[in-house]
Amino acid sequence: MSLPDLLVRALDAASLRPAAGDVLVVAQKVVSKAEGCVVDLAEVTPTEEARRLAPEAGKDPRLVEVILRESTRIVRVHAGVLITEHRLGFICANAGVDHSNVGLGPDAVCLLPRDPDASARAIRAAVRAAFGAAIGVIINDSHGRPHREGAVGVCIGAAGLEPLHSLVGRPDRYGYTMRTSIEAVADELAAAATLLQGQCDEGMPAVLIRGIPIAEGEGEARRLLRDPALDLFR
Amino acid sequence: MSLPDLLVRALDAASLRPAAGDVLVVAQKVVSKAEGCVVDLAEVTPTEEARRLAPEAGKDPRLVEVILRESTRIVRVHAGVLITEHRLGFICANAGVDHSNVGLGPDAVCLLPRDPDASARAIRAAVRAAFGAAIGVIINDSHGRPHREGAVGVCIGAAGLEPLHSLVGRPDRYGYTMRTSIEAVADELAAAATLLQGQCDEGMPAVLIRGIPIAEGEGEARRLLRDPALDLFR
Repeated sequence: MSLPDLLVRALDAASLRPAAGDVLVVAQKVVSKAEGCVVDLAEVTPTEEARRLAPEAGKDPRLVEVILRESTRIVRVHAGVLITEHRLGFICANAGVDHSNVGLGPDAVCLLPRDPDASARAIRAAVRAAFGAAIGVIINDSHGRPHREGAVGVCIGAAGLEPLHSLVGRPDRYGYTMRTSIEAVADELAAAATLLQGQCDEGMPAVLIRGIPIAEGEGEARRLLRDPALDLFR
Repeated sequence: MSLPDLLVRALDAASLRPAAGDVLVVAQKVVSKAEGCVVDLAEVTPTEEARRLAPEAGKDPRLVEVILRESTRIVRVHAGVLITEHRLGFICANAGVDHSNVGLGPDAVCLLPRDPDASARAIRAAVRAAFGAAIGVIINDSHGRPHREGAVGVCIGAAGLEPLHSLVGRPDRYGYTMRTSIEAVADELAAAATLLQGQCDEGMPAVLIRGIPIAEGEGEARRLLRDPALDLFR
């Protein structure tokens, strides 16, 4: 059974009936595994570059090789940290490749989905077919951040909702007109769901969020990425 | 009436009875205003440095002056963006100084609270005195982020909870032991509350969160700041 069908069945089993405006947040790990985005390091031969970076990155050269294949650019390598620009455009540690909750042996690592927006669209379509409701779908993952400690859930794939909510032109409580505020609602929804999903043995890969006013839209997690020309921290 | 007392009264009026383990998230703006952290730009004389930076920062030189007073260091100034290190240690746009929801005239701007951890502790003590419950308190604000579009709610003050939740040493569902994961739960709680609070004319400055397992702790939003020596993006 496909992941979208499994999610529909799980919603049904939990007596959750999705309604228009709900947001279903699905953990990247189950999407990746369902789509076969798993690599056995035993079958990876590191290139010269991966072997050269491995000691500074503090990682197995085969893992570094997988990370490099997933990346378009190395952003920082320093004292056990390897930060790259992922082929999907965002900047994160280890290109999102990790060992946890793969469950296919000690050498198996999980990559991000090939196209998380497409994964979200497929889940959205299945929920719509089963329940008749136009919901938003977010694929979330935990990313570290420059300047701040700890990882937080962020949106890496989306469908059916507007990831950014512009407040420009809206009034505050005193008639002042907002001039620059844009809220990354998809990232906030992703973070909220992470609080319930956990990352260890909780077994809670999906969270249905209700009661947050969201705007229907194309989704596209790419819209959450800052234009490189405007990114002062590259 | 003090803000902690107003919050106790509002909880009571909403028939919300805080219980141990709940988290009350309070918007920075009401804390700052209650503590008088408001400056009238009409009374500000910009220094030479503020006048020099103003055109590139795309801002009133008097506003730049206030931002500089709140900051220990300028991080980036480019094409209408002014990013500084705030005296509280975090890196954000305009040192958290803004015009919205101040309500004291067109030239009034609001600063961050002097000591948001202390503000959170006072709210926590008032809730404990009124309801007998040991809750966590977070002061949140919306910050932009390097690399990603849009602002998200983050924790700038905390009391009674552990802002970071280390998963190191815990097993995943397949017995793999987590090695590096640390979750910034205080930032995720701050982001979740922002979804309900809004930032315009919603009039929802505080949100009570229940059902998220948090660890009691000292709070201290400073723990969410990366050690400058380990921050690869300074």
